[in-house]
Amino acid sequence: MYDCLIIGGGPAGISTAIYLARKKMNIVILTADFGGQAAKASSVENYLGFPKISGPELTAKFKEHLDSLKIENKIGKVESLNKIDKGFEIKTDTNTIQTRSVIVASVKMPRKLGVPGEKEFEGKGVSYCAICDGPLFKDKTVAVIGGGNSALDAAIEIEKYAKKVYIVNISQEIQGDEVLREKFSKSEKTQAFNNVKTTEIFGEQFVKGLKYEDQESKEIKELVCDGIFIEIGWTPSTDFLKGIVKLNNLKEIELDKNNQTSVPGIFAAGDVTNVLNKQIVIAAGEGANTALSTWKYLITQR
Amino acid sequence: MYDCLIIGGGPAGISTAIYLARKKMNIVILTADFGGQAAKASSVENYLGFPKISGPELTAKFKEHLDSLKIENKIGKVESLNKIDKGFEIKTDTNTIQTRSVIVASVKMPRKLGVPGEKEFEGKGVSYCAICDGPLFKDKTVAVIGGGNSALDAAIEIEKYAKKVYIVNISQEIQGDEVLREKFSKSEKTQAFNNVKTTEIFGEQFVKGLKYEDQESKEIKELVCDGIFIEIGWTPSTDFLKGIVKLNNLKEIELDKNNQTSVPGIFAAGDVTNVLNKQIVIAAGEGANTALSTWKYLITQR
Repeated sequence: MYDCLIIGGGPAGISTAIYLARKKMNIVILTADFGGQAAKASSVENYLGFPKISGPELTAKFKEHLDSLKIENKIGKVESLNKIDKGFEIKTDTNTIQTRSVIVASVKMPRKLGVPGEKEFEGKGVSYCAICDGPLFKDKTVAVIGGGNSALDAAIEIEKYAKKVYIVNISQEIQGDEVLREKFSKSEKTQAFNNVKTTEIFGEQFVKGLKYEDQESKEIKELVCDGIFIEIGWTPSTDFLKGIVKLNNLKEIELDKNNQTSVPGIFAAGDVTNVLNKQIVIAAGEGANTALSTWKYLITQR
Repeated sequence: MYDCLIIGGGPAGISTAIYLARKKMNIVILTADFGGQAAKASSVENYLGFPKISGPELTAKFKEHLDSLKIENKIGKVESLNKIDKGFEIKTDTNTIQTRSVIVASVKMPRKLGVPGEKEFEGKGVSYCAICDGPLFKDKTVAVIGGGNSALDAAIEIEKYAKKVYIVNISQEIQGDEVLREKFSKSEKTQAFNNVKTTEIFGEQFVKGLKYEDQESKEIKELVCDGIFIEIGWTPSTDFLKGIVKLNNLKEIELDKNNQTSVPGIFAAGDVTNVLNKQIVIAAGEGANTALSTWKYLITQR
């Protein structure tokens, strides 16, 4: 039986693993890939210690740190979690794991727009990852749907390649850090449509454009483009916890001040929780907090 | 008038400054030196992204990050803080600063033992910083007073130079990370005295040893040594806030869930607060949280 199973390999999960490994706990980390949402950022400039680093490079630093501690890694998708004597049994699609405690630090999935055409054109011009797919749109016209830091970050990344980048934003104005807003406005290749709601994605074999409703005039207009990046936030992967631990109405895990869920022995950290701000450095800090609480739980339960 | 005055240049203060500078707030950081307690660690192995780095090196990375944003820095010791119209006025020993908001992220001072001889021999064999003064004790005998991670870290650092390193610990056993405990035990130069209370530091021009009481037998014994490092924790520098914001019985600043103190417009972050775990990565994360709350406060007060 493991002391702790850590579900997820984003900044929170990795930080948790580092702290518990240094306490010589017998741990295993369940994840197919590392870095979570951070790995998909084109440029990270607010993780203390790295003035400017790409998401994949920062993830490589985190991974190197993790590997220095030789922590066991399993791959699998959680299918069920059950209480057993002295701990929990987790079934994944590939294995069964018994553990005294669980830390949920699972990554988030990009939120879907939910309009006609979105599913049909996914991978055919519709993307959720600018850093992965941005280079495919060299000299093309691209629309980024969203209006926060993620949308700005995506637009700035794509602008390097594309001929023209639109932001299609449902709010009155773009939110997000002033430095990103300035960078976006400064480019002659960018343009923002605010207060408009995307209603449809259309195309033939590939995307040809989108339709949006001007929320003031209620007019429906067309925007012709070759690619569409959807950057409207993320949804936590907590389906396997439904009915087991308390979730809030955003499906985020609710935590007490010790980062414990409503079930003793199940802890959580990072963006999957009801933490106020979703930031890499905050996830890393919360990972440390959760690990220390889990460790206290483990040594008092012995 | 500044948007925000940040008091303190440890990891929390620097992280706060980075977040607010990226929001293009008009900020100033008040600190004589950077890094706080982190700068004094001999080896940091749990700040995510750096598998193994010395405190001064990590501080240099943080400082480089801060400098990339060209943030104003003033030097001075806070003498008073008063509410004025639309903000606060802070008087230091060298200047007067008016600001719309304040973030307290001041560093901590090493806790004193409070025994005869401690003050008399400070700088004459009594030290509070192993990484600063450890090399002075080459081939000497040193006692580290304390029983947690800080004491272990100090003992391991000093062991590189010294002939013999004792830990003099008031508790039944040494607390702290298993990896550090193992490193300490593995050396033939180290020895721990547990369950003993230091009662006096003695010497002539320099330290010659200490007296301790065996808490079981109540016997007073002498330990001959050339240097004494006191590593029994830290006390927050919050005297200037007494009677202004709510402090707990450890003199730590009490925060609400938005990292605001009991006074609107005064926020805090890091080890100076009632945060559960005092860790570099947690301070960095809390700095980000505090900055984002302060920013929300500033934009709604305009």
